[in-house]
Amino acid sequence: MIRRRHPSATLSTTRTEAFTDGVFAIAATLLVLDLTTHSLGEVSSDAELWSALGDMWGLFLNFALSFVLLCLLWMTHVRQFEHIARVDGMMIWLNNARLLFIVLVPFSTGTVTEYSDFYAGRLILPINFFFAILFSWLQWRWAVAHRAEMMPDLSDADAVAYGRGALSALLLSLVVLALAPWIGSIAFTVFLLDGILTRALRGKGS
Amino acid sequence: MIRRRHPSATLSTTRTEAFTDGVFAIAATLLVLDLTTHSLGEVSSDAELWSALGDMWGLFLNFALSFVLLCLLWMTHVRQFEHIARVDGMMIWLNNARLLFIVLVPFSTGTVTEYSDFYAGRLILPINFFFAILFSWLQWRWAVAHRAEMMPDLSDADAVAYGRGALSALLLSLVVLALAPWIGSIAFTVFLLDGILTRALRGKGS
Amino acid sequence: MIRRRHPSATLSTTRTEAFTDGVFAIAATLLVLDLTTHSLGEVSSDAELWSALGDMWGLFLNFALSFVLLCLLWMTHVRQFEHIARVDGMMIWLNNARLLFIVLVPFSTGTVTEYSDFYAGRLILPINFFFAILFSWLQWRWAVAHRAEMMPDLSDADAVAYGRGALSALLLSLVVLALAPWIGSIAFTVFLLDGILTRALRGKGS
Amino acid sequence: MIRRRHPSATLSTTRTEAFTDGVFAIAATLLVLDLTTHSLGEVSSDAELWSALGDMWGLFLNFALSFVLLCLLWMTHVRQFEHIARVDGMMIWLNNARLLFIVLVPFSTGTVTEYSDFYAGRLILPINFFFAILFSWLQWRWAVAHRAEMMPDLSDADAVAYGRGALSALLLSLVVLALAPWIGSIAFTVFLLDGILTRALRGKGS
Repeated sequence: MIRRRHPSATLSTTRTEAFTDGVFAIAATLLVLDLTTHSLGEVSSDAELWSALGDMWGLFLNFALSFVLLCLLWMTHVRQFEHIARVDGMMIWLNNARLLFIVLVPFSTGTVTEYSDFYAGRLILPINFFFAILFSWLQWRWAVAHRAEMMPDLSDADAVAYGRGALSALLLSLVVLALAPWIGSIAFTVFLLDGILTRALRGKGS
Repeated sequence: MIRRRHPSATLSTTRTEAFTDGVFAIAATLLVLDLTTHSLGEVSSDAELWSALGDMWGLFLNFALSFVLLCLLWMTHVRQFEHIARVDGMMIWLNNARLLFIVLVPFSTGTVTEYSDFYAGRLILPINFFFAILFSWLQWRWAVAHRAEMMPDLSDADAVAYGRGALSALLLSLVVLALAPWIGSIAFTVFLLDGILTRALRGKGS
Repeated sequence: MIRRRHPSATLSTTRTEAFTDGVFAIAATLLVLDLTTHSLGEVSSDAELWSALGDMWGLFLNFALSFVLLCLLWMTHVRQFEHIARVDGMMIWLNNARLLFIVLVPFSTGTVTEYSDFYAGRLILPINFFFAILFSWLQWRWAVAHRAEMMPDLSDADAVAYGRGALSALLLSLVVLALAPWIGSIAFTVFLLDGILTRALRGKGS
Repeated sequence: MIRRRHPSATLSTTRTEAFTDGVFAIAATLLVLDLTTHSLGEVSSDAELWSALGDMWGLFLNFALSFVLLCLLWMTHVRQFEHIARVDGMMIWLNNARLLFIVLVPFSTGTVTEYSDFYAGRLILPINFFFAILFSWLQWRWAVAHRAEMMPDLSDADAVAYGRGALSALLLSLVVLALAPWIGSIAFTVFLLDGILTRALRGKGS
């Protein structure tokens, strides 16, 4: 008798986007706490202050790196949700899982800074981003699998193109994971190959 | 002469939703501070770092648990406000009370982690979530009682279905409260029964 | 020759509302840091943990009080901007001044908790809220003075009613300021008289 | 065959604005942590408490200064995006760079407070704001260069006027940078000349 299988089986994306933007904005801004809690130590001259600030270069670099990576993941979210019109419960949970790993970024960043001398310390940030990208990919797969309901306006060509982009990011995050123990955070520069790899995957489907 | 009983007796929900999304996003992200302020201690080898991270499993678990519960409460809010078109002063105050207990979650989570050896320590998080869910239920009751004004588009069937869902969550949070002193945070797994209990309550009205 | 006096002399309120909601949500959520950084001390039994939590009642009370006051000020903002359609530069600066005192609330709350034994300590929070309410009142005055441009849809009766409400809050915050040195934060209960005073001011214009 | 050069080459600005508002709101609110973590020391009388609060005047001033500057930069963003309808990848990255320096403000503010005795300490905040304004200017240049696509509704006169405003802010931030080592944060008062300089630049094009 009831034609719909559930009241409000799907929801509009407005609130999910607002919650996501909030979490990303806060995680990105909390990164600064790593800098503010760092003590510059006793300083008694200009030269010493410049040198104390210079000694923080590792902190600044990690701060900037995590900020850029968060922006990258946020932009992926924005591009995906430009097409997603409705979400179901599974989509929101996949989104929550994605955000769980975003929230962890300030912790991972702090650990990298402190323990970059160890393999383990160099692996934490890549592992964190790998999972964030994995759930980003899973969420997109789910949306594509329920395309009629969730992305009625997406053309076939766009679905394939976005699938390639998401897969490229996932593969590159695996490469980062493999390289990071040996070369540290420099490994994240492989994300610069994203454009090339996305094009290389052309024609292999979503 | 004045036909309306008060200027702007009701307000649109846009701002209430934005404020709510903000509070949830910040509370969820502040959970990470519990991890970042935890010191891994002196570490002199990879094995020691992995072991120090492993010793944090309790912290990670509590972090993930509170994050998931916050997401659950946020999703309840989203689903309810998908139908609520206008709010009055009482609705906003019930919403504020709800948010008061959301804001407390980072505190309760930190306490659980530190004092899980005591009955009292295991009770704080369940008490916190019980009150958040209680006000969520009261808010829904109020909205249903003023349905004509606040949710003109909600069908009778949906009102009943949502009422069952809200009641199910309230009952389950009482069960968690009763079990938590004995089995700790594992008690929260009873929320997995939510779907079953909601269906069991079918036919009992809103 | 140029008919408009300035490019975009007025702006839509969307961004101002979003920024305001964000600042209120964060200030309200940061209040919890006062609780999380409080150490419960060494605890070796359930009785000691309950008693340590009980000793925090002053902290909890101040936390709840500031949360409720922030919600009150936020709701005033929401009600005002329900009518304001456009803002000019002065409106945004008055809004920024208002937010400056909102951002200070977590600081004032922490001070009250620690120094409530002194007149000065009991005055800081009332002073803080007085200025927040003062700028709220000034902002409303400005909007009313430029009603044609900013609130084209507001009726005369509503303008008067809102003016009374804003004036009532301002007068009450002065009473709190006068009483707080003698009776402490209990003075804030005079805000419960808001409804009565607003009605008492009826007929005195905006 | 594909007529568009890329799927979704441009995006609507809604999410970028939400993310930006969030980052500004959080950065502005985190400024208070500089005050809350400041210890007032042992206080045993009202006179001592007032004096301890008075000794914080430097902290309060820096707090208010950074808050006002953040509001200024936020308002610039709002005014610019009042006209920008679509953004491409480069615009979002310029926006991210802008936000990177916004996120750094709580760190720079803390450093100024602590090390204002040194040239270096007085330079950090002006450098921070210079880069934020630089990227603000670059973003506007980019938007103007792609005006047809991104700001179809902007008139030529407005484009010129806004260009002058952005250039004026950039020049003034350079003046601040030059003066700050000698006169400290008072240098920021040159921003009060913004209106005059903007008019002085009139007729020099965008």
